[in-house]
Amino acid sequence: MNGAESLVRTLVAGGADCCFSNPGTSEMHFVAALDRVEGMSCVLCLFEGVATGAADGWARMTGRPGLTLLHLGPGLANGLANLHNAKKAGTPIVNVVGEHTTQHLAYDAPLSSDTEGVARPMSHWVRTGRDSLGIAADGAEAVTAARTASAYGPGSVATLILPADTAWGPGSAPVTPAAPPPRAAPEPSLVAEAVAALKRGGETLLFIGADAVRAEVLTLAGAIAARTGAAIMGRTSLSRLERGAGHVPLPRLPYPIDLSIEALKPYRSIILVGAPDPVAFFGYPGKPNRLAPPDAAIIPLADGSRDLAAVLRELAEAVGAKASDAPRAALARPALPQGALTPESAMTALAALMPENAVIIDESLTSGRATAALTAEAPPHDWLQITGGSIGIGPPLALGAAVGAPGRKVIALQADGSAMYTLQALWSQARVGADVLTIIWANRSYAILSGELRAVGALNPGRKALDMLSLDHPALDWVSLARGMGVPGRSAATADAFVAALREGLPQRGPFLIEALI
Amino acid sequence: MNGAESLVRTLVAGGADCCFSNPGTSEMHFVAALDRVEGMSCVLCLFEGVATGAADGWARMTGRPGLTLLHLGPGLANGLANLHNAKKAGTPIVNVVGEHTTQHLAYDAPLSSDTEGVARPMSHWVRTGRDSLGIAADGAEAVTAARTASAYGPGSVATLILPADTAWGPGSAPVTPAAPPPRAAPEPSLVAEAVAALKRGGETLLFIGADAVRAEVLTLAGAIAARTGAAIMGRTSLSRLERGAGHVPLPRLPYPIDLSIEALKPYRSIILVGAPDPVAFFGYPGKPNRLAPPDAAIIPLADGSRDLAAVLRELAEAVGAKASDAPRAALARPALPQGALTPESAMTALAALMPENAVIIDESLTSGRATAALTAEAPPHDWLQITGGSIGIGPPLALGAAVGAPGRKVIALQADGSAMYTLQALWSQARVGADVLTIIWANRSYAILSGELRAVGALNPGRKALDMLSLDHPALDWVSLARGMGVPGRSAATADAFVAALREGLPQRGPFLIEALI
Repeated sequence: MNGAESLVRTLVAGGADCCFSNPGTSEMHFVAALDRVEGMSCVLCLFEGVATGAADGWARMTGRPGLTLLHLGPGLANGLANLHNAKKAGTPIVNVVGEHTTQHLAYDAPLSSDTEGVARPMSHWVRTGRDSLGIAADGAEAVTAARTASAYGPGSVATLILPADTAWGPGSAPVTPAAPPPRAAPEPSLVAEAVAALKRGGETLLFIGADAVRAEVLTLAGAIAARTGAAIMGRTSLSRLERGAGHVPLPRLPYPIDLSIEALKPYRSIILVGAPDPVAFFGYPGKPNRLAPPDAAIIPLADGSRDLAAVLRELAEAVGAKASDAPRAALARPALPQGALTPESAMTALAALMPENAVIIDESLTSGRATAALTAEAPPHDWLQITGGSIGIGPPLALGAAVGAPGRKVIALQADGSAMYTLQALWSQARVGADVLTIIWANRSYAILSGELRAVGALNPGRKALDMLSLDHPALDWVSLARGMGVPGRSAATADAFVAALREGLPQRGPFLIEALI
Repeated sequence: MNGAESLVRTLVAGGADCCFSNPGTSEMHFVAALDRVEGMSCVLCLFEGVATGAADGWARMTGRPGLTLLHLGPGLANGLANLHNAKKAGTPIVNVVGEHTTQHLAYDAPLSSDTEGVARPMSHWVRTGRDSLGIAADGAEAVTAARTASAYGPGSVATLILPADTAWGPGSAPVTPAAPPPRAAPEPSLVAEAVAALKRGGETLLFIGADAVRAEVLTLAGAIAARTGAAIMGRTSLSRLERGAGHVPLPRLPYPIDLSIEALKPYRSIILVGAPDPVAFFGYPGKPNRLAPPDAAIIPLADGSRDLAAVLRELAEAVGAKASDAPRAALARPALPQGALTPESAMTALAALMPENAVIIDESLTSGRATAALTAEAPPHDWLQITGGSIGIGPPLALGAAVGAPGRKVIALQADGSAMYTLQALWSQARVGADVLTIIWANRSYAILSGELRAVGALNPGRKALDMLSLDHPALDWVSLARGMGVPGRSAATADAFVAALREGLPQRGPFLIEALI
């Protein structure tokens, strides 16, 4: 067994058994080892940002470490933006990054670069393999590192750099990764502080993030709020919220700074559960960085590295809340819309027609802000978002979620500008028959920036400035782009046409794209 | 004048006057300032790797610093792969990377990351602006840093990180960038060594890279070789070679390791002129890292940071060579091909029909290896290549070259797998009417990796491994992909159809794409 095979077997033993790959020469032995190991599946991606975003989506659905195979420093660099999102989601990720042989690293070859330096900003754990006999142990440590909770949630980003000779040299036996350290219990003094605040009722907010928005934990939060009269609110972007009929309704902090300050204004105490002290997405002239009222008490009960279920069980017990106290969303399907196609009418149509147990990928940005409420009483579903603000996560996240959750319909709500960063994911969706319905919000602009231009006080923009925000010359033709990658699609300019396209796309068992001309 | 405007005026004063942009919130004041400054043009790119590759292409054609505008750490990360290529090309580049406000950096916002850490691996110079009054001076230093020669050629990569408040606060007057330090003269002892080796004639090789392959300097190299009986050879990949009828013919070191060792075997002395000691692209089992015969004398006459024109003038004088001694390629147009479409017949057609003074962008990889010779006696043209081995440079390099060299036809020879990394460049080509004819070598595989799989000794690959090298399921449809971004195209499966497509595409004054089904 060579080093590559020992590593592949180790990764499979650690549950990292689906490899989103964009390989090159230095990874050829790893690629060849894939065939010798049962239980490892592979998805070829035509760009590294697709591989990293898909690994994130797969891991969010399976709870196991998402695995990528990337090619040297520049290949890893192409994957960093979505690793940034994965890091901010607290997703467990293992990147295997092929590297020049140990000997060749001494020379200045065209592809030589500081691979560890590239990895570090978006990784919690970085190691370069030293020799082929040790690479399985390195891989096991990478898996354990990935499964170690971070401030943002249950996982971390681990990057193992694999010099080609550590892959082709003799390997050890596979190594079973050690269990990660258990997530820490809450500090008793903070629990006491939180309980005291909750007993003050309506002026207290449970501000929730990380994996505290999964059904079981969220139910506890809903029960505590119902019992005490406190409020609950989620972060603006969440890694995987369970919502819809039967789940606890969770409002989220709005994105625009004025609305977010307004939303937090009523609260005198804010208890942080898997979430940081709320701060603005960006700094704006003359506006605060922190969003909570300056005199509100912030109780940092638990960041994402803690055992959030245990945290909320303690709180629930202290206030006498039971799961049955939690409010639940009703099931209510709206009537089908007619007339103009807008984000509102489109989301109404989706709420009317979406199947039970869907997985929603939300990179809608401006088109999604006002419309998420329209699906609050739709059949139960998961809601996965862009967590680190680095656009271009949607198409790969949908790919990975579909591979990680077979049998569930994935519906991607996708801003057009953002989709262009990683549109290559459509090809992989077609290749593996991923059950993804993509809805492109074709507003043909970086609409978010029009608001931001005003928000930062850059007034009276001229032609050149506005030209930097517009995507309408030429207009992107998403049906052609999808066809070019083997994905069928329809364009819809009216609510009727959108409903017809949904009725065509939803029953498919493979990728389909609707260009919504809003 | 705010900081942003002082910076834009400073960049224009430094010749960095075409901004390849993918902006976000933190860059809105920079964007607004673009309208207040005459002389700065802007090209919107829908992905950061397009912006960095285009800036490289623009700078290779103009000789001035290529300018990008990027958004925070993740946006810069998306641009790194082509910055790697630019760095290895010795191209002068200034990246302006928007950042959170100085105050906001203290908080953990979704887009917070270690932006300097992201910049460092692919930048020679990195700075974060401290305040708006100093940002023009910072910009001037960035321009000077970009224009400072590096080991790879006449320029460097400079990254200036621009916190939003340094853009919107009060600015100073614009600053005129200082001249870069002059490129160093050669070491007299190395010149003497080189002259002695040249006088030994046929066993000596001038191994050439950086900007020593531009016509004036290359002519001197050709004259020296003609005079002494020495040979000349270029690096495998060159930033901008002037070739074709009237230019000095320059063979290049082959890519495959066995061929490259063979090519260097005859030489006892290798004089390095703007090139490093030749090393293999990758390390391979049982093969050397260095390519020169182990007992050959390596004379490191000048790396890319030296004044290569002065170096060769000294050599020429010492051996009594005059420019008129240099051999020149004849003009010879081949007959039009018929029959099957292969890289050979396609390149023959191109040699028959290409206009004078074209700019060839070469990211053909496997399809280009055997065919470059077919255009050796075509009308004079420039030949720009992927310099750092990081694939996905071609479409943006073509965009930037077209913007930087108006009136010249740009012809991009583009491998299909590589094109997928940065296909968004086609949209910018359409938007600005860039005069680019793209030829996609649609072999529907990572063909280069099939050879590499063998070269690294990963024998008997199985289904999963081969699946990682094949792009044929589904087949990419490049005419649809181009149409989706507003670029007209044709698919060609025979030599006749390819000739017809060339005859349609070459006279256009805007982008056109030919999918060559080889």
